[in-house]
Amino acid sequence: MEALGLSLPLIEPGDDLPSMILKAADQIGGLREGDVVVVSSKVVATAEGRVKELSKIRPSLRAKRIAAKSGQPPELVELILREADRILKIRRGVILTMKRGLICANAGVDQSNAPKSKAILLPRNPEKSAERLRLALISGAGARIGVVISDSVVHPLRLGTVGQAIATAGIEPVIDCRGKLDLYGKPLKITYRAVADQLASAAQLVMGEAGERVPAAVVREVEIELVERPKLSPKISPRRCLYSGVKL
Amino acid sequence: MEALGLSLPLIEPGDDLPSMILKAADQIGGLREGDVVVVSSKVVATAEGRVKELSKIRPSLRAKRIAAKSGQPPELVELILREADRILKIRRGVILTMKRGLICANAGVDQSNAPKSKAILLPRNPEKSAERLRLALISGAGARIGVVISDSVVHPLRLGTVGQAIATAGIEPVIDCRGKLDLYGKPLKITYRAVADQLASAAQLVMGEAGERVPAAVVREVEIELVERPKLSPKISPRRCLYSGVKL
Repeated sequence: MEALGLSLPLIEPGDDLPSMILKAADQIGGLREGDVVVVSSKVVATAEGRVKELSKIRPSLRAKRIAAKSGQPPELVELILREADRILKIRRGVILTMKRGLICANAGVDQSNAPKSKAILLPRNPEKSAERLRLALISGAGARIGVVISDSVVHPLRLGTVGQAIATAGIEPVIDCRGKLDLYGKPLKITYRAVADQLASAAQLVMGEAGERVPAAVVREVEIELVERPKLSPKISPRRCLYSGVKL
Repeated sequence: MEALGLSLPLIEPGDDLPSMILKAADQIGGLREGDVVVVSSKVVATAEGRVKELSKIRPSLRAKRIAAKSGQPPELVELILREADRILKIRRGVILTMKRGLICANAGVDQSNAPKSKAILLPRNPEKSAERLRLALISGAGARIGVVISDSVVHPLRLGTVGQAIATAGIEPVIDCRGKLDLYGKPLKITYRAVADQLASAAQLVMGEAGERVPAAVVREVEIELVERPKLSPKISPRRCLYSGVKL
């Protein structure tokens, strides 16, 4: 398996991201059948124009109250409240939220790699963005390509971020291992493998979080099932979650 | 970045795992300076003899009570209770626990890829195991090598497992990004990157969970800091954790 970073120019709202990815992929000999393109949610959202000028945001009373507690600008907190489906925790410097079935810091509203006084939101509909990107890449490359839109996520009791797939297109994001046998012919205890999340983490090893301008990567020669319509979702409802009801 | 699976013969208690890894690495031209060897905790524990015959375990009353609730064999639950530092949740088929600062299913006690009627525990001291393995690989390969002992972990609201580093040796497992600047010269919001966990996930894309006999991988050409003594740990105390106090 190989992961190759793609250097892109600075992305601006309205940019044609698929063309820029195809052009960047020329550096690695172009995209090939079965390649998975992992793209940071940040550049997808930026190209889609999901960039907000903070000075134009009118914070509510609630945003001001929470801002005092979290130590973030009230305008930023206002955006977070608008974007979040649920607030899980308010802590100095960060608000832990649920959004579209994902646990995420600040509802994905982020000032890093955003122009000064601006904040970037998550893509409005990441699944749609992933599918649009996939179709454009397939048409440009003339090969079947998988797409993962990735974000950075912190997990319980761990220091540091890993990659997580906020949406995928063209690949089965979870491998169903039920029925597979272990070394001794017994059915496996591990029933599903979160390959899309593993792809997002592998890609982040060659992508930059800072000013490196490597917001995408190609993962190739990996056993992955290309599909038109995935059967599984990497997201599960709180009710089905192993952690449900656990107070950490 | 490249991740290459290593096919190993069936590991038995007492086996010389470093020699077997070095031999398997011949298939990929041997280990090179800067390579990171990711090994499943399962084979490390097996070679160390951390294998228990279930029929020899006498379950306590508490184990029997929990076994009735979780639907697992009382002998297995007894081992889980002995291995766990804390029980977080009892659910049909799985007990969520804390062990050595990690959240893990069944305290790492696992029957998959174990001979029938046996269970494999986690390595007794994964950090020591990783360091021993590192020194043996360095001495065999004549090159500086990093080691990650990996396990499969499920994260909140996600379906499927990803890789997690339960111990590392010879690498800085977390990259401190504080002070780094983003595209626009502003300090980064993401302060740490959990590269050891990312390496574990990347490796799992080429490793098998089932009977594939690929319980290790070499990750090479990745920007990683080789160190004798890491400064950071990927584990944090519940008090410092972003999820602390959050009921999921």
